[in-house]
Amino acid sequence: MDLGNIQSFRKQIKIIDATLRDGGLVNDFAFPQGFAKALFEADRAAGVDIMEVGYRASQKLFDPEKFGPWKFSREEDIAALVGEGKGDMKISVMADVGRTELDDIVPASQSVIDMYRIAAYVNQVPAAADMVELCHDRGYLTCCNIMAVSKVREGDLRRALEIIASGPVDVIYIVDSFGSLYPEEMRAMCDLYGEIAQKYGKQLGIHAHNNQQLAFANTVECVAKGVNFVDATAGGMGRGAGNCPLEALLGFLKNPRYRLEPILKFLREHIEPLKSAGVRWGYEVPYLLTGLNNVHPSAAINFIREGRDDYENLLHDILSGE
Amino acid sequence: MDLGNIQSFRKQIKIIDATLRDGGLVNDFAFPQGFAKALFEADRAAGVDIMEVGYRASQKLFDPEKFGPWKFSREEDIAALVGEGKGDMKISVMADVGRTELDDIVPASQSVIDMYRIAAYVNQVPAAADMVELCHDRGYLTCCNIMAVSKVREGDLRRALEIIASGPVDVIYIVDSFGSLYPEEMRAMCDLYGEIAQKYGKQLGIHAHNNQQLAFANTVECVAKGVNFVDATAGGMGRGAGNCPLEALLGFLKNPRYRLEPILKFLREHIEPLKSAGVRWGYEVPYLLTGLNNVHPSAAINFIREGRDDYENLLHDILSGE
Repeated sequence: MDLGNIQSFRKQIKIIDATLRDGGLVNDFAFPQGFAKALFEADRAAGVDIMEVGYRASQKLFDPEKFGPWKFSREEDIAALVGEGKGDMKISVMADVGRTELDDIVPASQSVIDMYRIAAYVNQVPAAADMVELCHDRGYLTCCNIMAVSKVREGDLRRALEIIASGPVDVIYIVDSFGSLYPEEMRAMCDLYGEIAQKYGKQLGIHAHNNQQLAFANTVECVAKGVNFVDATAGGMGRGAGNCPLEALLGFLKNPRYRLEPILKFLREHIEPLKSAGVRWGYEVPYLLTGLNNVHPSAAINFIREGRDDYENLLHDILSGE
Repeated sequence: MDLGNIQSFRKQIKIIDATLRDGGLVNDFAFPQGFAKALFEADRAAGVDIMEVGYRASQKLFDPEKFGPWKFSREEDIAALVGEGKGDMKISVMADVGRTELDDIVPASQSVIDMYRIAAYVNQVPAAADMVELCHDRGYLTCCNIMAVSKVREGDLRRALEIIASGPVDVIYIVDSFGSLYPEEMRAMCDLYGEIAQKYGKQLGIHAHNNQQLAFANTVECVAKGVNFVDATAGGMGRGAGNCPLEALLGFLKNPRYRLEPILKFLREHIEPLKSAGVRWGYEVPYLLTGLNNVHPSAAINFIREGRDDYENLLHDILSGE
């Protein structure tokens, strides 16, 4: 496998902009008018390979009145977003196991969606494998994102990876849900996932979180280890500490296909105004504390929402397992 | 060499808190009353090995009216800070080649300073070697920080390292002045510095900057490669994008000597108020652009000071070499 080096590039690398999807977790998908369209145009101009427009959540389980449209990513909303054409950029949506109506997944010939990304916890992997197969059979490219793997024992993870990799899935994602993995551990994950992916001829992806300011570093390390599908978001927008910043990733990757300027413009015109309006994400000390201790960021999210700054008590609660 | 792994620790690792010194570049060393003393107490309680109190700048070259005391780190100011005792924590100051009065460096027996850190550009290395020797002869531990090495050709760097390492210096620092190095490049730096350090029986140190959100990641990678002297600052306070956050480093290192809580308290009581008062540092897009392009952050610092957000023009200016 030709991995290239820091001065070269692999044309197999694909950037997935997950701003609308992971960013939507910050604001219940209530993006301002024009945000999604401007991002679509910026992504196309920047050479982003795949734009993830949102979740495909069940409208029976979630009240459409309470969330913006990209929680559901209805076919007609995506079609309106894409408009006259998406060029060579692909469109993906994420479907959580247990939160998606399978009937909503229409045949690919009737959709502008190119790829379904199935997200599951390790105990949901058999159900995820079924959903992957269904999406594949309906004509889509498929990913499987096994979440929270920093809490999963290696034997269980191996069995889960075998179940997924032996099916029709195209890409298997390494997901550092809690932003707890150090680069050294991330490289070990690449080895483990890579062994099974290679056995079945599958691609790998990386989705990192920034709790310890390691999202970009871990992403760069995965690229060096042969991971070809790379998630990022504009301004790092995403739940809690956020994600690998798209602008950093575009600057790092050497493929001349990528352009940084359209994303810089998008940051100025759409991300900075969101931040100024009080929408809050990105590295903060409470997220460091959950990341350091390998727990879900919910305790940090609540701590920040309550306006607290008694970090020592948060640390104590985390260490007590509260 | 026993490097340990992510679950073990090397007792040889020394944390240097450079908050007053690198942080002072943000506010011309005008720290609020009580800040330095609270930091001293927090560092002691946290188990920080060395506290760097500031620069030892010439009062002939710099007007003492225009800077706070830690620009000059006079013996009497440090003695007042240390008060009744520093326990097993050491005190360091940084002395820039060409900006220090050698007569100010009194014999160690008359000082509470334990270590002088000599900072130099590669062309100043012969002068730095003389200063190291002088400080060593006056009874101090010595470091040499060769700055901006991401711009230095390997042959020149090797010659500089040989000059320094063949003298009495105790520690040689890898300094990523522009925050431009990726973890892969940082590991290569460790190999180069390590080869020469090992030949002369010297220790290595790491001083990282956060322009690309890589300061903590690069520091962690250096620790894994055998670097034992590790710079960090409270809240990452430091020029431009700042440094490796002390709180992240303390959380990462597994030596039970280190305590995170005193630094969390210091962040709440002293760093957050600074930020609220408008003192500004840390990762922002303009610093990413200088880091990506391996140039001094001054263009980004000016850009931010002017309240600009036309990132594309900054990128264009950087690429034009302006």
